[in-house]
Amino acid sequence: MGSETKSEIIDATNSVLCEHGYAGLTVQKIADEASMTTAAIHYHFDTKAELLNAFLDDLIERFKTKLTFEATDPRDRLTAFLDHAFTPSDPAADGFPVAMMELKAQAPFQELYRERFLELDDIVCEVVREIVADGVDGGHFAETDPDEVARLVTTTINGAHARHVALGEPLDDTRRMLENTLELHLGWQPRSEVVA
Amino acid sequence: MGSETKSEIIDATNSVLCEHGYAGLTVQKIADEASMTTAAIHYHFDTKAELLNAFLDDLIERFKTKLTFEATDPRDRLTAFLDHAFTPSDPAADGFPVAMMELKAQAPFQELYRERFLELDDIVCEVVREIVADGVDGGHFAETDPDEVARLVTTTINGAHARHVALGEPLDDTRRMLENTLELHLGWQPRSEVVA
Repeated sequence: MGSETKSEIIDATNSVLCEHGYAGLTVQKIADEASMTTAAIHYHFDTKAELLNAFLDDLIERFKTKLTFEATDPRDRLTAFLDHAFTPSDPAADGFPVAMMELKAQAPFQELYRERFLELDDIVCEVVREIVADGVDGGHFAETDPDEVARLVTTTINGAHARHVALGEPLDDTRRMLENTLELHLGWQPRSEVVA
Repeated sequence: MGSETKSEIIDATNSVLCEHGYAGLTVQKIADEASMTTAAIHYHFDTKAELLNAFLDDLIERFKTKLTFEATDPRDRLTAFLDHAFTPSDPAADGFPVAMMELKAQAPFQELYRERFLELDDIVCEVVREIVADGVDGGHFAETDPDEVARLVTTTINGAHARHVALGEPLDDTRRMLENTLELHLGWQPRSEVVA
């Protein structure tokens, strides 16, 4: 039952984070959400930081799956990647991006969180770098530095999310700007599906 | 004495934020730092949110002064702007960017903070927009959409700061990427002074 219980606890952590934010996250609320005792949770995770580390680990795994694209053409993969990065989260999980931003703001204090966020960032960077390198090799994109384009995309997504969460700035506007800028780098413009 | 006391309180708030972060900010610590009673602070600011709103207002004013450049050539103004945006903060105020990120993560919950951060963002966007528009008009930059370049720069700076604070990513790398990207938009590359 070990790993099943752990995954129930992680699901419950996700729900509590979305509803109450990082500041409102308590082991008691997670226990209530998972219909367990707090003792059962402490049996699996000594500290709240360890639990959140496991939550971020789980998130990274789900992220990896989402960033595995069926398409082989680098242009389709880039479009699919942008669709994923700029899709507003499920309204039912509205609190999720806010909770992630709170958690990220804790990274300077919590080495474990920082490591997980670095891992997440590396995954995104590597996915973009590979798409761009494949596109350049295949003659779909102009000659450009895949590392630099990956940095551009990752930094823009970081900034877009921070502005979306903190300032309410629409993601679509930032996406259009990024697409136009990518055209300058790649000689090819990803086509956004304009979301109403 | 009213405004002088207020500015002492705001200075003390700045010091406490840098040292203890947003989560560690208490009226008691601000009172200790300013050598005042907590009652004196409550006399000027009813709530912690009001006090932080005044702190952000003060920050906005200082920011406006810093973003007024002596240079008239748009290329020099753009370089001066990037120098300002990508200069790591004073080591004595090391905690400042972290506190700002924590405060920003509270923006979804605190309408007052959100409004101040939006104001700050508008100022930055407008400064860049004006520099780019002047550069295009004066023939220094290629034809480009000043609004879009302003959005690119602002989003990149947001992302660069988030990555710097949360992940420890060096600001210089992001600056170089932004400079190369700006060259594609403007036909002119800002020259970064490489900081050792």
